[in-house]
Amino acid sequence: FGSKSLRKMPLIAVTSITDGLKRLYIEKLRPLEATYRFNDFVSPLLTNSNFDAKPMVMLLGQYSTGKTTFIKHLLRCDYPGAHIGPEPTTDRFVVVMSGSDERSIPGNTVAVHADMPFGGLTTFGGAFLSKFECAQMPHPLLDEITIVDTPGVLSGEKQRTQRSYDFTGVISWFAAKCDLILLLFDPHKLDISDEFKRVIASLRGNDDKIRVVLNKADQVDTQQLMRVYGALMWSLGKVLNTPEVVRVYIGSFNDKPINEETVNPMFRELFEKEQDDLLMDLVDIPKKACDRRINEFVKRARAAKIHAYIISHLKKEMPAIMGKSKTQQRLIDNLEAEFAKVQREHHLPAGDFPNVNHFKEVLNGYSIDKFEKLKPKMIQAVDDMLGHEIPELLKNFRNPYA
Amino acid sequence: FGSKSLRKMPLIAVTSITDGLKRLYIEKLRPLEATYRFNDFVSPLLTNSNFDAKPMVMLLGQYSTGKTTFIKHLLRCDYPGAHIGPEPTTDRFVVVMSGSDERSIPGNTVAVHADMPFGGLTTFGGAFLSKFECAQMPHPLLDEITIVDTPGVLSGEKQRTQRSYDFTGVISWFAAKCDLILLLFDPHKLDISDEFKRVIASLRGNDDKIRVVLNKADQVDTQQLMRVYGALMWSLGKVLNTPEVVRVYIGSFNDKPINEETVNPMFRELFEKEQDDLLMDLVDIPKKACDRRINEFVKRARAAKIHAYIISHLKKEMPAIMGKSKTQQRLIDNLEAEFAKVQREHHLPAGDFPNVNHFKEVLNGYSIDKFEKLKPKMIQAVDDMLGHEIPELLKNFRNPYA
Ligand SMILES: Nc1ncnc2c1ncn2[C@@H]1O[C@H](COP(=O)(O)OP(=O)(O)OP(=O)(O)O)[C@@H](O)[C@H]1O
Ligand SMILES: Nc1ncnc2c1ncn2[C@@H]1O[C@H](COP(=O)(O)OP(=O)(O)OP(=O)(O)O)[C@@H](O)[C@H]1O
Ligand SMILES: [Mg+2]
Ligand SMILES: [Mg+2]
Repeated sequence: FGSKSLRKMPLIAVTSITDGLKRLYIEKLRPLEATYRFNDFVSPLLTNSNFDAKPMVMLLGQYSTGKTTFIKHLLRCDYPGAHIGPEPTTDRFVVVMSGSDERSIPGNTVAVHADMPFGGLTTFGGAFLSKFECAQMPHPLLDEITIVDTPGVLSGEKQRTQRSYDFTGVISWFAAKCDLILLLFDPHKLDISDEFKRVIASLRGNDDKIRVVLNKADQVDTQQLMRVYGALMWSLGKVLNTPEVVRVYIGSFNDKPINEETVNPMFRELFEKEQDDLLMDLVDIPKKACDRRINEFVKRARAAKIHAYIISHLKKEMPAIMGKSKTQQRLIDNLEAEFAKVQREHHLPAGDFPNVNHFKEVLNGYSIDKFEKLKPKMIQAVDDMLGHEIPELLKNFRNPYA
Repeated sequence: FGSKSLRKMPLIAVTSITDGLKRLYIEKLRPLEATYRFNDFVSPLLTNSNFDAKPMVMLLGQYSTGKTTFIKHLLRCDYPGAHIGPEPTTDRFVVVMSGSDERSIPGNTVAVHADMPFGGLTTFGGAFLSKFECAQMPHPLLDEITIVDTPGVLSGEKQRTQRSYDFTGVISWFAAKCDLILLLFDPHKLDISDEFKRVIASLRGNDDKIRVVLNKADQVDTQQLMRVYGALMWSLGKVLNTPEVVRVYIGSFNDKPINEETVNPMFRELFEKEQDDLLMDLVDIPKKACDRRINEFVKRARAAKIHAYIISHLKKEMPAIMGKSKTQQRLIDNLEAEFAKVQREHHLPAGDFPNVNHFKEVLNGYSIDKFEKLKPKMIQAVDDMLGHEIPELLKNFRNPYA
């Protein structure tokens, strides 16, 4: 993993924060979630695998831009089942992760594995699961991050007709779970096809995770490289549509050494610097992932509280004896107004409320009368956690917001 | 003008085509224009200076990006009245053109000079003319092109409050007359201020004339240059908003040799190639300008014909004796419908018609009754010119559409 020493945060701190969150979740947040069925309305209860999952890096790009080779370059060896070649080779999503020995696990098995965080992928169906795989191997880098290799994005209409599953949906699912998304381009595959645009659009909301790699930069001469790079930035600026310029790493992330004939020594120096920068960015992931995890945990706790307020409010509106089903129907029909009441009563931001239509749909399957009343102690426990225990936890190890 | 030999079209051909157009204008087109007052409604009659004017190159950019130095680099000497310095120095528009001896002519004089094509600038008023100047000197390059130096674009609100004239209006005027527009950036002045955005917006319709120069590229190291260049392309793509990538020349267009210390030999080679490419682009201008001139001449002839049809149609609608002023008012009020009649009668494209409101305004100052009836011979003369004489002229010298 290069000669550079890794400037990373002590793994012990990450582990301790993870353990702390795990404990807080079980003691303080999960009871509230379970009582008001947060899991049915919003998001499944968290399991250990959600806390223990390694930070993930996903590689995306047209076919043959060197995604699989990039992983080989990082690991300094092939992962089990890796295929490299000039034609479209990788035909599936492969999660490359740490394991005691080298093996490939088929998608259907991966999805039901309780200690792997991929259960959510079952919603994409059997056609997808047969194109999903986990490659395990012992490797020091994989102790810190998990890498997701993907099938190359095809151009034109080919892709839509060829794939038997929701390709952009899967990418969007992984993008939400990942900590870094690398978009690979090569000088001969610059055009951003319509399909690729849809893929990039499906990353929306995760823009801050995106980095771009202009790979195989040693394959063209200097003037061509400048043209290619300029054209890439020109179109990326339009497609990504953020004011901040995305970071582009220019280099050749290959298993073979850089092409010494076409590449001028000075460009070799540039490529090496860029490669070092990218490695540093990768090494930084665990620390960033830890920050992100805390952030999401806090967001989840707030959402669970709002959910509890909504459910207990609906329960309170139910009559003691007569007209229960009529009232239930009225409440569902006027759910938006009920949300507004809850919002006013507890001074909550409107933007934090769940989608009304989705909520209605789930609510139709329940009898509101059976819900629990508001339990102030449970709310208090979550407030304590947000106000004292989490800040305390961070202070004891490190302050991610410092 | 560099050691490169100039691959230009023979000047004799340009001259012959120019002379041919001049003759055709006087014999065939000008009579039609004058008869129906095309000059009052659309565009002043052309004079020799319009035909003899050299192709123009305009330099635009933030202050201190090296516009004046770029001209010095091209000419290998200062132009009369040139100021170069790190603070905002050029405070006026300077047309640098060929002349028998070195001198500066103030803007008010330039604007009234019959053999210079700058009369139109008087509409920008005295405040502008006092910030306008012509620098003349004998120079082989200036025999072929005229160069327009401009005051640096300022950032923020400074500019709007400081300039006493319509800055973007003037730029837009020059942009229409120019054959090439160079936008200069330097690595330390990349941001495209709101004012600069307005300037770029005022170039609309002339997008194909725009080239970009990333100047002073030797002032930063390789990795920085790549960042800077990438960021420039990122934002240019959004501002220029054309699908085609604009050509960016990377280099240092300085009166001094390239900074040998910071610049690696390989980048020096790149810069030299880029500088050669830009010079070639400049050398190509006279030929392109000639094509453009023919194109505009043909467009003008079509517009003059449509104008003649409109005017003679309005004349025809006037009563012989009574109710003239009432009819005139009715025609003006329903001018759009009258345009439509002319369009149908002569099978003309609607998009080629002039702006109705502007036409109405000018028409208010005239008595329609005094206009001329349609003179088919005059129309026939222009049709002959478009159908035979111009193609003949081009064939005799060269075919610009080959
Ligand atoms: N940095 C590089 N320089 C030169 N050639 C490279 C580089 N990286 C990969 N290649 C070559 O490009 C081809 C495609 O590589 P690879 O299979 O890794 O691409 P991929 O993006 O994984 O493609 P797919 O989407 O089809 O899986 C191979 O022939 C490989 O040897
Ligand atoms: N290629 C170059 N490399 C390094 N320095 C340069 C280069 N070109 C110009 N300079 C320096 O930058 C400064 C500004 O140059 P100059 O006056 O030509 O810019 P300008 O764009 O004409 O500015 P203004 O808009 O104020 O007229 C001067 O100090 C000049 O010496
Ligand atoms: Mg692959
Ligand atoms: Mg200047």
